[in-house]
Amino acid sequence: MDKHMEHTTTVDRRPPATADHLASDTTRAAMRVQQSLLGATRAYLGGQGFTELLPPIIGPVTDPGSRGSKQLDVDYYGHRYKVMTSGILYKQASLLAFDKLFFIAPNVRAEPPETCNTRRHLAEFHQIDVEVAGATRTEVMAIAEGLLTHVVRHVLADVPDQLEVLGRDPLAFADLLDGPFDVLAHREAVEALRRLGQEQSPDAEIAWDNEELLSHEASRPFFVTDYPKGSRGFYDRESTTEPGRLRNFDLIAPGGFGELVSGSEREADYATIVTRMRETGENPAKYRWYLDAIKAGVPRSAGFGMGLERLNRFLTGLDAVWQVNAFPKIPGEVSP
Amino acid sequence: MDKHMEHTTTVDRRPPATADHLASDTTRAAMRVQQSLLGATRAYLGGQGFTELLPPIIGPVTDPGSRGSKQLDVDYYGHRYKVMTSGILYKQASLLAFDKLFFIAPNVRAEPPETCNTRRHLAEFHQIDVEVAGATRTEVMAIAEGLLTHVVRHVLADVPDQLEVLGRDPLAFADLLDGPFDVLAHREAVEALRRLGQEQSPDAEIAWDNEELLSHEASRPFFVTDYPKGSRGFYDRESTTEPGRLRNFDLIAPGGFGELVSGSEREADYATIVTRMRETGENPAKYRWYLDAIKAGVPRSAGFGMGLERLNRFLTGLDAVWQVNAFPKIPGEVSP
Repeated sequence: MDKHMEHTTTVDRRPPATADHLASDTTRAAMRVQQSLLGATRAYLGGQGFTELLPPIIGPVTDPGSRGSKQLDVDYYGHRYKVMTSGILYKQASLLAFDKLFFIAPNVRAEPPETCNTRRHLAEFHQIDVEVAGATRTEVMAIAEGLLTHVVRHVLADVPDQLEVLGRDPLAFADLLDGPFDVLAHREAVEALRRLGQEQSPDAEIAWDNEELLSHEASRPFFVTDYPKGSRGFYDRESTTEPGRLRNFDLIAPGGFGELVSGSEREADYATIVTRMRETGENPAKYRWYLDAIKAGVPRSAGFGMGLERLNRFLTGLDAVWQVNAFPKIPGEVSP
Repeated sequence: MDKHMEHTTTVDRRPPATADHLASDTTRAAMRVQQSLLGATRAYLGGQGFTELLPPIIGPVTDPGSRGSKQLDVDYYGHRYKVMTSGILYKQASLLAFDKLFFIAPNVRAEPPETCNTRRHLAEFHQIDVEVAGATRTEVMAIAEGLLTHVVRHVLADVPDQLEVLGRDPLAFADLLDGPFDVLAHREAVEALRRLGQEQSPDAEIAWDNEELLSHEASRPFFVTDYPKGSRGFYDRESTTEPGRLRNFDLIAPGGFGELVSGSEREADYATIVTRMRETGENPAKYRWYLDAIKAGVPRSAGFGMGLERLNRFLTGLDAVWQVNAFPKIPGEVSP
């Protein structure tokens, strides 16, 4: 069987009507897993001294670093505001209050309508958004690994009945629970893809189908680090020893579930941020409140966003990410 | 001292710059109280068999029943969508999945700029949104009372150090913890206001200054029930024995902190909802997904929304609601 195709015939690529979706046993079980995973997340991070904050929904600017998707504008008392595409700017600023913090952040991204069939894109989704003052990339990779491991272990113990309803075999997580996650530099991931006969530029984001292929080949989650500059936002810190490479990482799930986490060390130097904004086509004048906060002394940090629905899709083993959202928004389609 | 004025000189009516606000000990303490109150909310409701769901941020329609505020539009793939002003429509629909559910729901309401000085309005805020299938008003009033009591007790025991930083005297909650909350029908509240020399129409929402006055007069929270039709949304069920009155309630905090909760029995009859929509100036054709869900069998229910920031202001005793939000949005003003 072609591993790429193994899910495609088992579920519709689009959700049914809202009432049918909500009344389905699959949705109900997925929501119970969601509640369990969120409880585990709060327990794990709370136990490590993190403070949870509530991120804003709209603001004068938002994260420009999301690949291919569009931001939504609102007219806020005569000013053009944006619906948040991610909490990154607010995470960094919040370090002025707390050294270790997280959000469960709702994000809205008008993903290109052609992503309606990827089974892993929603125009509205959530991230577990974590940020740590003074941390290195290695340190927050360990937090991401620890968090994912804790969540898997907790969900397996807490809601085994729901996983059974969903037909998820607990053995799917045996390798994950068995040992540390591998780490590949982007360069090594490109080489691995070439060995598999795939085309992949060493100077670009890893293409979705390539990422999915690597995900299928893996038996436990693995990190990819050092993505090339240009593929990510201005806030990912550039390497000083390897210019053109960012001090960032993704965490990829096994089994074809793909990217779960994107993270990075952050740039916190005012002048460098302004330069990076200009390089990425952003107008620094629009980011006034953020740059004022940076100037006021936002510390260096590292952090990550873990996609909540992607994580739940991985936990539940469901075919499409819309199955783990109570009111899924498929890109390009009218939905509640 | 005029009780109405007792807070006004102690704090600015507007927040300082973002960096100063985030770096303040007051903000830090208020956020720790927020984390504690949210933990207590989840423990209390989770312990009673409630499932937490994540509400959408945008949709084709949203709650039209918020007094005086404007909805924000977004262009969603060529369709005019709204940023959620409340989760009410989604709470009702979610009863198709769960009999007892709640959201911690972010809401955006462009409140009139003249509310910038009320100390209790933010253009972006959160509600603890609770809904129970088959419940009566009396039953959900008991849940609201139990939840508030549990949260107060938990916060007093969990973060007394933070309350001390904020100068909040735990004795402020002695009467609340001491006994059941009083219940006044709207009619009785109007009479009480007239005895205090205030003007108040028996056929209208209780005016803000009147509500604040009643709040100042009270030593523990109290309910006001049976608001007149016209003051609330189409989803609040009308009394069958007293036409023109709704089967709804507010819960008002003592000490001048004002309204904490609005709740109601819900209308679940398709034809009645359509009639109520027309009466309140709403076009039923716009509510298609919601009406389809009602038609599919959303059960009768009752529920409430507890304002998270208002609750935290009451817990912390702070002068203005912007003090309990990390990124406060004062109506009419440019803010992050």
